[in-house]
Amino acid sequence: MSATVLSGKEPAAAIRAETSAEAAELTAAGTPPKLAVVVATADESSAWYVRSIARSAEKAGIACDIVDLGADATAGAIRERLSGLSADDAVHGIILQTPLPAGAALEDLASAIAFEKDVDGAAPLSLGRLVAGLPAFAPATAEAVMAILDHYGIELTGRHAVVVGRSTVVGKPVAHLLLDRNATVTVCHSRTVDLAAVTSTADVVVAAVGRAGLITAEYVRPGAVVVDVGTNPTEDGGLAGDVDAASVAERASALTPVPGGVGPVTTALLLRHTVQAAARAAAR
Amino acid sequence: MSATVLSGKEPAAAIRAETSAEAAELTAAGTPPKLAVVVATADESSAWYVRSIARSAEKAGIACDIVDLGADATAGAIRERLSGLSADDAVHGIILQTPLPAGAALEDLASAIAFEKDVDGAAPLSLGRLVAGLPAFAPATAEAVMAILDHYGIELTGRHAVVVGRSTVVGKPVAHLLLDRNATVTVCHSRTVDLAAVTSTADVVVAAVGRAGLITAEYVRPGAVVVDVGTNPTEDGGLAGDVDAASVAERASALTPVPGGVGPVTTALLLRHTVQAAARAAAR
Repeated sequence: MSATVLSGKEPAAAIRAETSAEAAELTAAGTPPKLAVVVATADESSAWYVRSIARSAEKAGIACDIVDLGADATAGAIRERLSGLSADDAVHGIILQTPLPAGAALEDLASAIAFEKDVDGAAPLSLGRLVAGLPAFAPATAEAVMAILDHYGIELTGRHAVVVGRSTVVGKPVAHLLLDRNATVTVCHSRTVDLAAVTSTADVVVAAVGRAGLITAEYVRPGAVVVDVGTNPTEDGGLAGDVDAASVAERASALTPVPGGVGPVTTALLLRHTVQAAARAAAR
Repeated sequence: MSATVLSGKEPAAAIRAETSAEAAELTAAGTPPKLAVVVATADESSAWYVRSIARSAEKAGIACDIVDLGADATAGAIRERLSGLSADDAVHGIILQTPLPAGAALEDLASAIAFEKDVDGAAPLSLGRLVAGLPAFAPATAEAVMAILDHYGIELTGRHAVVVGRSTVVGKPVAHLLLDRNATVTVCHSRTVDLAAVTSTADVVVAAVGRAGLITAEYVRPGAVVVDVGTNPTEDGGLAGDVDAASVAERASALTPVPGGVGPVTTALLLRHTVQAAARAAAR
């Protein structure tokens, strides 16, 4: 048996096509959508990711300002800039890129992003509304997991989903999105005892832990669906997932690749959110 | 084997004693703590609960205003009153009692409660901050579950906790509190397939589903700890838990009673939160 590859390219292309069309309409009607990405790091893989967002935005007809505050930016300076962008009517979406300088926490600083511009669902208010079942932008990576599962018609109601990782940006929100779709959801983490025994009970495994190749065949029940959220930089400048694809592909029924899985869908969703935010701003 | 009874009376009394002392200090210093409970229902068990909060507040030296808007109150009228109380410097804690009139949703209306007065953690911002690990008042019932487990020295790190119920007021926040304490956490609900098979794998079961006696012996692994959050009204005017205590007590190692378990600790925590909110207001 070899797992079906759940490529993110096809769902990402569908989202991008729809988003480009809406961006063109908004621009024609006098509200050109604009995304601002605030950067305060010299991290190379972060810079690579930000450039890829900017390129994708440009292709979709969305203006993208990269606001580079430098790796020495203070939390106060970052907060001030986020408040300024929140007050700027020409900006519709704001992303605060990680990593952040020491002493600056994403969860805390993201509070300075206006709720309606929080296109990566980073602010506590967005997260709380998501958990409470109220309208809000979900963190794009978490939503990308769901978009891939939906694109390939993977049933969730009554299935057991195990999320490995409890970060505020991926693990926790994806657990809520799975719960909203009537999955029974287990969240595992570094203190989980016998992780393989827990993940082996899952119909759907979501690996979002940030350790290259952690999930091997013995972590996966035969026939399970595995979604790999890991984006671990490799020595040769590439990306490795949290899943050891070669071994897992022999047991899983389906598996998202890295790169080319969750990543492109995440970027497409950030752009879709920006266009949605611009459309709401235009309607006000 | 018969399970140890994890009474809430002792931890509740300890919290109340501490809270009364702080209330007296605040009153002497010119900030008498005050709680407002907004009611918009004619529900009898709700009225009983509100009276019990008011009595406990009075005993602890905390003023308690019951703001009864009637069962016909509109969402707009409730929101307006919550905003008014949020702006009133003499009020330190605000609770919006459920059930609410048709068309009024707790999660939505609670947004009108000022964050610093949201002593029952009902507003989306409080919930989001809780999930993000930032300071916020947790929903008192969810925190009461943790307070009982802590009082009786029940270890959580690396243990498997299964929460039955996914409400915004109990199931979801208690899942986060358990996760913060390094438990591996599973959330089950009405669409979970073979609930007994899932709960039987738990070291700790938290029943918060609102169905009297749902959890019987076959849902519980021998030696597990069971926390019963259910408060289902019985025909004779009493309260029944979600757990069938008679059968579960023969398998569990420990079990909270209903009444006298999570309930009294919840009320004590609401009062503690009110005093904490008053202390912060006094310090401003």
